[in-house]
Amino acid sequence: MIFLKLLTPGPVEVPERVLKRCCQKVISHRSQDFRELLTSVVEKLKKLVKLDEDGAIAVLSGSGTTAVDAMIWSFVKPGDRVLVVVNGEFGERAADSAIRRGAQVEAIRAKEGDVVDVDTIVDRLENKNYDFVIVVQNETSMAVRYTFEELRKIGKVAQENGSLVLVDGVSGLAGDKVWFTDGVAAIAGCTHKAIAAPPGAAFVAISPEGAEIIRKRYSEDIPPALDLKRYIDKYDSVRETPFTPPITILYALEEALKIIVDEIGVENYIDIHVQRKHYFYNKIRHIDGLKPVPKNMKVASNTLAALWVENATLIQQELRKAGYIIATGIKEYKNKMIRIGLMGDINFKDLDIVVQVLEQSLTKQK
Amino acid sequence: MIFLKLLTPGPVEVPERVLKRCCQKVISHRSQDFRELLTSVVEKLKKLVKLDEDGAIAVLSGSGTTAVDAMIWSFVKPGDRVLVVVNGEFGERAADSAIRRGAQVEAIRAKEGDVVDVDTIVDRLENKNYDFVIVVQNETSMAVRYTFEELRKIGKVAQENGSLVLVDGVSGLAGDKVWFTDGVAAIAGCTHKAIAAPPGAAFVAISPEGAEIIRKRYSEDIPPALDLKRYIDKYDSVRETPFTPPITILYALEEALKIIVDEIGVENYIDIHVQRKHYFYNKIRHIDGLKPVPKNMKVASNTLAALWVENATLIQQELRKAGYIIATGIKEYKNKMIRIGLMGDINFKDLDIVVQVLEQSLTKQK
Repeated sequence: MIFLKLLTPGPVEVPERVLKRCCQKVISHRSQDFRELLTSVVEKLKKLVKLDEDGAIAVLSGSGTTAVDAMIWSFVKPGDRVLVVVNGEFGERAADSAIRRGAQVEAIRAKEGDVVDVDTIVDRLENKNYDFVIVVQNETSMAVRYTFEELRKIGKVAQENGSLVLVDGVSGLAGDKVWFTDGVAAIAGCTHKAIAAPPGAAFVAISPEGAEIIRKRYSEDIPPALDLKRYIDKYDSVRETPFTPPITILYALEEALKIIVDEIGVENYIDIHVQRKHYFYNKIRHIDGLKPVPKNMKVASNTLAALWVENATLIQQELRKAGYIIATGIKEYKNKMIRIGLMGDINFKDLDIVVQVLEQSLTKQK
Repeated sequence: MIFLKLLTPGPVEVPERVLKRCCQKVISHRSQDFRELLTSVVEKLKKLVKLDEDGAIAVLSGSGTTAVDAMIWSFVKPGDRVLVVVNGEFGERAADSAIRRGAQVEAIRAKEGDVVDVDTIVDRLENKNYDFVIVVQNETSMAVRYTFEELRKIGKVAQENGSLVLVDGVSGLAGDKVWFTDGVAAIAGCTHKAIAAPPGAAFVAISPEGAEIIRKRYSEDIPPALDLKRYIDKYDSVRETPFTPPITILYALEEALKIIVDEIGVENYIDIHVQRKHYFYNKIRHIDGLKPVPKNMKVASNTLAALWVENATLIQQELRKAGYIIATGIKEYKNKMIRIGLMGDINFKDLDIVVQVLEQSLTKQK
């Protein structure tokens, strides 16, 4: 097996010291040591998403999809009116999950490489009564994102109009300001994106108001494994998870969060991603035949860059020879788009090499 | 952190070489290397549960509960008539999941330390029209199990009466004959029980007939993360998972399965557990104040022993001092029962020490 450096939308290149923790012996999830591990993870995650002390964090065994599904199925009730903001594939998936839940779902869709304008969302929120608005903060299929200021505006207007915002923070969290603000009830995330730990654990961070809703909820119509009430209640009472957690992945998550929250600092860590984004897009600006997918830098994702190209799979192969694995577009964009992760244990030199290979590949194709 | 040897109902003591694989670098789940890893895991799992080549295995990111929920929610439709055989806590949980799914659930319950008699189950299957029978093959709350012969009989009668059997194989699989037989549509399992890998991955093994049902099913009313159709379709078409899998845990799972399937052999590996069971119960037979929970050795679990005691939490503490972590009873049995795992990287000497501590503890308590 040849290990390529991961420049994909996730999983990402995991720092050596984080990966090492995965080999630490397994402990019982009904022991004091585990309770301390889980509490440490929860407290650090709260700092990462700027959640009040009295907010709640449900730590699940699963992928980002598990977290998003658990969030949607635990908050949304069948028949609820839900607005889903769709900026690409993951917005569609959120809408699909809410439809499967039995909600009355309406979607507003963005143009390619853009996000739905916040004014459009505000207008809809002010004129219709939604129970929930679902927003994918960072959309990896198009490498576009909402800024924190936009998220705050959506949250504020949602709150004024009796809606709650559920945020799919999976691919933006830790690399962008995916933070709690008025109106945001929950943020879903996982280990293997900008946090840079191996895949296997996921979480839903819940505002104090959101936690109160979940605690009081009759939730006996969703699968136990996705029932956030179970997770909150168990953590409240004994600092444990209701079902067996992915213990070795939680060791890694704790280590990754130590780096981000305790050592580098949440805002500095985000800044690393912003710098990588600007560095990369600046470097490719003068290369003929490359066009950024995001319409401008404001909507451009911090954690992933995307470019329109003519032969994406060929470029992907050439980067593989150089030791890197990148992603191409999803579905109809498969051969038309390359997507390059800006997350994890990578550096500017890695991005330089990517740019170099891109340039050579385009020259050859001429 | 002091690492105690795990003699619990799971997670279990993981062999060094299995744990080591968890530190292997993360690969992309959309790469050829990953497809080979997943195929290897799937093929070995098929041998473990004696599943035909044309059966299917869905590999999920999650716990045993995730696998059981995915199985129940993907097979059972709202309104379906479901019989749940309840021999303890995990039977109750299966019934709860089916009720949440909207099924018409009937339960038959065993006496303490016993399983529901197979003739009773047969009688119910012959006289009522159930769509599904859910059986927890090994019930850890009471340390009781069904033999393969009993499972086969249930499956046969179910099949004759138009029912399908869904097996929660989580805590018995690999340590008992939790194998496919006529009438069994699916078996749910996970990494951190007798397979002896760290927690984080789960799976549902599905018979060829079961897979056909799932493939044709309209499943748009369950959470995507638990939708077995997604997993089967993705594996059928590209040998991948629909959502990010717990890659490092799958490395470990592959290593654990190599030991069981390729090196020791499935039946020999089961035999190790049978031997441990008899060794342990024989050793404690002459100690006053200890009584096995299972009513006889036929119903006694291969993977976990349980004893009635007077002061379970005290005994647990004393074993902790000796370097072992065991479990006490669940809920009302908390202080009345100790449960000792017979799974994972342990040996007869470990069981000797447990017996010694038990004996000393009971002498002190007199």
